[in-house]
Amino acid sequence: MGFSLTPKDTGFYDLFSQSAKHLVEGAAELTAILGATSQEERELIAKRLSEVETSADEATHELLRKVNSSFITPFDREDIHGLASALDDCVDHMEAAADLVALYRIDDLPQGVTKQVEILSRMADLTVEAMPRLRSMKDLSEYWIEINRLENSADKAYRRMLAELFNAEGADPISVMKHKELIDELEAAADAFETVAHKVEGIAVKES
Amino acid sequence: MGFSLTPKDTGFYDLFSQSAKHLVEGAAELTAILGATSQEERELIAKRLSEVETSADEATHELLRKVNSSFITPFDREDIHGLASALDDCVDHMEAAADLVALYRIDDLPQGVTKQVEILSRMADLTVEAMPRLRSMKDLSEYWIEINRLENSADKAYRRMLAELFNAEGADPISVMKHKELIDELEAAADAFETVAHKVEGIAVKES
Amino acid sequence: MGFSLTPKDTGFYDLFSQSAKHLVEGAAELTAILGATSQEERELIAKRLSEVETSADEATHELLRKVNSSFITPFDREDIHGLASALDDCVDHMEAAADLVALYRIDDLPQGVTKQVEILSRMADLTVEAMPRLRSMKDLSEYWIEINRLENSADKAYRRMLAELFNAEGADPISVMKHKELIDELEAAADAFETVAHKVEGIAVKES
Repeated sequence: MGFSLTPKDTGFYDLFSQSAKHLVEGAAELTAILGATSQEERELIAKRLSEVETSADEATHELLRKVNSSFITPFDREDIHGLASALDDCVDHMEAAADLVALYRIDDLPQGVTKQVEILSRMADLTVEAMPRLRSMKDLSEYWIEINRLENSADKAYRRMLAELFNAEGADPISVMKHKELIDELEAAADAFETVAHKVEGIAVKES
Repeated sequence: MGFSLTPKDTGFYDLFSQSAKHLVEGAAELTAILGATSQEERELIAKRLSEVETSADEATHELLRKVNSSFITPFDREDIHGLASALDDCVDHMEAAADLVALYRIDDLPQGVTKQVEILSRMADLTVEAMPRLRSMKDLSEYWIEINRLENSADKAYRRMLAELFNAEGADPISVMKHKELIDELEAAADAFETVAHKVEGIAVKES
Repeated sequence: MGFSLTPKDTGFYDLFSQSAKHLVEGAAELTAILGATSQEERELIAKRLSEVETSADEATHELLRKVNSSFITPFDREDIHGLASALDDCVDHMEAAADLVALYRIDDLPQGVTKQVEILSRMADLTVEAMPRLRSMKDLSEYWIEINRLENSADKAYRRMLAELFNAEGADPISVMKHKELIDELEAAADAFETVAHKVEGIAVKES
């Protein structure tokens, strides 16, 4: 990382930790929408997740403003930018998924969706726990290894669900389309969490 | 931006302005295809938009060649590259949308599509007007704020259309799929315009 | 490229050549799955392509580790990274396409799919032949020109297929969806090969 004559601004680490907290909030709302029993409730929860997404956006912008106005940053500017954007993408996909549930009035959720959202919740917890360790760059490998493992299992669940969805006898095509979009959005969220882990791995390799 | 002992090449600004003109031409053809009354007319207009796209490609390549062969550039090479590619993407999505209308013989366009294309036309006008201001880097913030506002309203219209499309009683699934693809492509075009605005904002923040 | 006082590590070129070999293996399995006559055979071939994909992943990681641990690289680190990732994407899309054939039990492949896979095979052959020429940076332009030509013809075949698929009388919507996804994935593979060619062109322009 070269040298730094002045202590590095520790505010960045706090901002990353704050940013990651939105992931946990997002995953909690996503879990809640699966258990919703009315369209009103689904719309209410989707609206709350949309507010989480707005806060996450603001946190990202604050991070980027700080990068632009700081003379010294704890790691490369483009890596800070990449990690902040990757965290933001996770929330975006979770918000989009909740929005689809409300928008399409999906009340007969495919069973596997619960499994997908459980994996996302676990990923969110692991990510928020890993952020403070960016400061020391220590003990991060168990985080990204576990995220990779979870993403692989999400991927397997995803493919199994698609096979079931498309091979079901007498399925209603419009329903299949709606479910496919939701399942795809949740899979995109899992991929986004893996991207965050890749960025963290990249930073750790470079800085160590 | 560091320093520059020689005057910067102003050709870049002209090339960006020329490049942006393809957006206005593309949006005009897209508006025209909505009013087409026969399949022949739709194919003719799609073909014209495809020629606009080819010209836009050439303009992009000229910009990139100029970047590669210039010793001094008005702003960072990678930013010039990024902005040129982002402008190109707008035309690509508009061309793809017109192509879908002709290809799928869509003659019963969902009403909201007109609204989507109106927003794209407004975005194209704003973008072409903003390009010459890259030279002074002044008065650009109203441009990107307005593009963001338009993109948000495009996004709301988009989601409302999808809800209507999927929740319509007795809809023909194949028609739903065709319309979904067209609506998605137009939404991708609006996103591409927002990306252009983000790139301009990024350049302005860096250079100011 | 500036100067280098020590001979550059030639291991990178070998790694790129090895990496590209997975493309040829992938294309061969993709060709095989089109001729499969039972679901068991389709699943077996999809599994083999999945193993090719795993090997390709490992080759990519080896390249990236080498970049991170090398003091001198034959061309810019980010270009090596970009090219390695782009090669990896080609295999990923071919693997995903084979997986869809097995997963959706597609036994009535649309005719155009054969044409798409033939183009991918040709692209794989050209790419593997081009890799050793990275060393001299000579005679590469015929490679990227031919890839661009093939991608254009793939694109035309793709659009024709979609028109046929969606305009067929009395088509089963679920079948249309399955076929659309497969055709899209093969088109994404062709795009990925074009991205590889763009990366090679970018490197050649910079280094020459």
